[in-house]
Amino acid sequence: MTASKPLPHTGSTADDPIVAAVSALGVKVRDASRVVATASSLVRDAALLAAADGLEQAAVAIVAANAVDVARAESEGVSPTVVDRLRLDVSRVGAMATGLRQVAALADPVGEVLGGWVRPNGLRIEQVRVPLGVVAIIYENRPNVTSDAAGLCLKSGNAAFLRGSSGAIESNLAIVAVLRSALESVGLPADAVTLLADTSREAAVAFMQQRGVVDCLIPRGGPALIASILEHATVPFVIDGDGNCHVYVDAAADLAMAERIVVNAKTQRPSVCNAAETLLVHADVADEFLPRIAVALSGVELLGDERTRALIPGAGVADDEAYATEFLDLRMSVAVVDSVDDAIDHIRRYTSGHSEAIVTGDLATAEHFTRQVDAAAVLVNASTRFVDGEEFGFGAEIGISTQKLHARGPMALRELTTAKYIVHGSGQVRA
Amino acid sequence: MTASKPLPHTGSTADDPIVAAVSALGVKVRDASRVVATASSLVRDAALLAAADGLEQAAVAIVAANAVDVARAESEGVSPTVVDRLRLDVSRVGAMATGLRQVAALADPVGEVLGGWVRPNGLRIEQVRVPLGVVAIIYENRPNVTSDAAGLCLKSGNAAFLRGSSGAIESNLAIVAVLRSALESVGLPADAVTLLADTSREAAVAFMQQRGVVDCLIPRGGPALIASILEHATVPFVIDGDGNCHVYVDAAADLAMAERIVVNAKTQRPSVCNAAETLLVHADVADEFLPRIAVALSGVELLGDERTRALIPGAGVADDEAYATEFLDLRMSVAVVDSVDDAIDHIRRYTSGHSEAIVTGDLATAEHFTRQVDAAAVLVNASTRFVDGEEFGFGAEIGISTQKLHARGPMALRELTTAKYIVHGSGQVRA
Repeated sequence: MTASKPLPHTGSTADDPIVAAVSALGVKVRDASRVVATASSLVRDAALLAAADGLEQAAVAIVAANAVDVARAESEGVSPTVVDRLRLDVSRVGAMATGLRQVAALADPVGEVLGGWVRPNGLRIEQVRVPLGVVAIIYENRPNVTSDAAGLCLKSGNAAFLRGSSGAIESNLAIVAVLRSALESVGLPADAVTLLADTSREAAVAFMQQRGVVDCLIPRGGPALIASILEHATVPFVIDGDGNCHVYVDAAADLAMAERIVVNAKTQRPSVCNAAETLLVHADVADEFLPRIAVALSGVELLGDERTRALIPGAGVADDEAYATEFLDLRMSVAVVDSVDDAIDHIRRYTSGHSEAIVTGDLATAEHFTRQVDAAAVLVNASTRFVDGEEFGFGAEIGISTQKLHARGPMALRELTTAKYIVHGSGQVRA
Repeated sequence: MTASKPLPHTGSTADDPIVAAVSALGVKVRDASRVVATASSLVRDAALLAAADGLEQAAVAIVAANAVDVARAESEGVSPTVVDRLRLDVSRVGAMATGLRQVAALADPVGEVLGGWVRPNGLRIEQVRVPLGVVAIIYENRPNVTSDAAGLCLKSGNAAFLRGSSGAIESNLAIVAVLRSALESVGLPADAVTLLADTSREAAVAFMQQRGVVDCLIPRGGPALIASILEHATVPFVIDGDGNCHVYVDAAADLAMAERIVVNAKTQRPSVCNAAETLLVHADVADEFLPRIAVALSGVELLGDERTRALIPGAGVADDEAYATEFLDLRMSVAVVDSVDDAIDHIRRYTSGHSEAIVTGDLATAEHFTRQVDAAAVLVNASTRFVDGEEFGFGAEIGISTQKLHARGPMALRELTTAKYIVHGSGQVRA
């Protein structure tokens, strides 16, 4: 005999005032999520459009709030790159509004019938797509995530429970105020977009433990955040993970194509997860390809194994750690391999399971590679940079999952839903 | 710059000999999983059939090993119900073999193309169903789970990493030995079915933290096991959860049908998760239905609210805890509600999100209930007992998920898979 609810909040008690405050907020979000889940897409889209208008109208106020965050960051000596991510101007606020309008224009994922069949006893079973309920997002300094994530949650019938960083708190509060009044303007509960204003570590841990409130937690941040989620979270989560992506140039590759792909995968935007970090080259073409790619990748620091360094004299030494590293920078590990299977072995050892590419003209090699490599996306003769919700045609993206459960690869509206079985009978009982 | 692998094992170190032993075993299972993942279904099915033959041939030896577990349990004063779950005889071993043959006969889920499209730039994207990799199962005293779970894992292209209870260790070792030699007989690695023979708590915690090895952990057990998973697991998991299931008898119900459904849902097999625990009756039909169902449920202890007790004088008092309890026994909570919305509110407060049923002849009420109730399965005019992999037509079941991520409701072969995007290009790079 077991009391089925609530499941325990591991490692913290509701006697703690911070935990109690987060829980109280969570209950409000959960209640609001029930209204949003059954609201028509007309109403949810109206909220998104109202929010877009609201952001444009409040742009000056949002930029002013953001200026407080930026000034604080600068006075604390935060790096210019991070300050740039934090900074909003009227045009960036306008881009957030445009994003919300684009999301509103997407098809509603809710209500899609995923399948249905009739059992021999006459039971009619349907599997229907429904919202998750409460989607929690924990993220770092970019204030546009507040608007983007909330928009995707509402479009997919979910409430958004947001925990941004302390460094962006003024910006986030200003943006959330606009989103909440947009919800109210169409008759939806404001609590369907709720920001956790307490940016303490204790509150973050409590946030990760809102079991019975949070249906899915999506962390958007670096390894420290992921480690904290693994340690503390008791709610279900989807990890938006690292991308230690490889490009393998096969013996049967078109080397001009390989050069274009490697350069694009490494340099087109090196700071993102789908950028390539390691180049693997088949020994048969290494003599020709490595000197050539070293020139094409001028400005990129190359770290190679012995055979690579023999062909690229300027390359540094790649050790085990280098091959395991997601540089997110103009740096790349290189290795020469003797076969596609050696390339696959190397990838198996170091992959983070994000995106892996092969350049080859050989059909059997391409099939072998796509079959054997275990990653969210495997690409043949294309840049890893395409593994992205927009580039896949999803119209949006809330992250890229490197886990295998629930969602794998770019996540958009469908990945913010779950399914429900609806069974219709005429009095059937089980024999 | 971040080393993307391995992610930290939270709260334990590889210096610990138990952790090191579990990790070493895990690496072997992972290596074996790669072979199984790309083996043809012909080979995997041959392994299942060989295992079925092997179980039958080894039946006497398995029963003898089981007798050691049974004798130990009896000497420790374990309850007869639990001993019965543990006990094997030749016929039960035969049923395990039959189960493996049935699983072998099911369609292979691996390789199914879930979708595909072409992007404007010519990229051809396909989403293909692939095995998870290593599926870990942690379970209690039933030794048949060893064979059933391993069979479903192999059928879906996964390796099975099993951790049964100490009380069934001799039985499990005997069964796993058969499964492993069946794998070897068809040329697959024996390690694709691996039992953690160390049944200590420390080893169980290490088992839940095999990040980078275990792709999905499925706990099959009670609330204590679930709490331990929430506290310790760092690997992704799917909770096979409680069923605090309700049947709501609406004002527009056919009361004869309602009686059949309530009796079936409560009494046909009270110890399982899809049995009903609470009966909700609309006030308009309570006068007629409650006395009638009290007779039909003779032998079931009823606990009711005030209005129920006025109509069923023999009923006990149902408090908040009773409504929250999954009795798994011949006991049932009862409440009278004034509307379908009151029924929905009651369910919202107490549901574990498993299976919820309504009995009604009114179309709008049925639609309102199926839309508003948030559970893995919502049934109209049918017994909750149908929410089951076999009854849904999946041919098998590894559990019933009450979570919303990855799998919700009965889980079978499809739920033991993930997806991989395969992208074919002709040299595309991102602008």
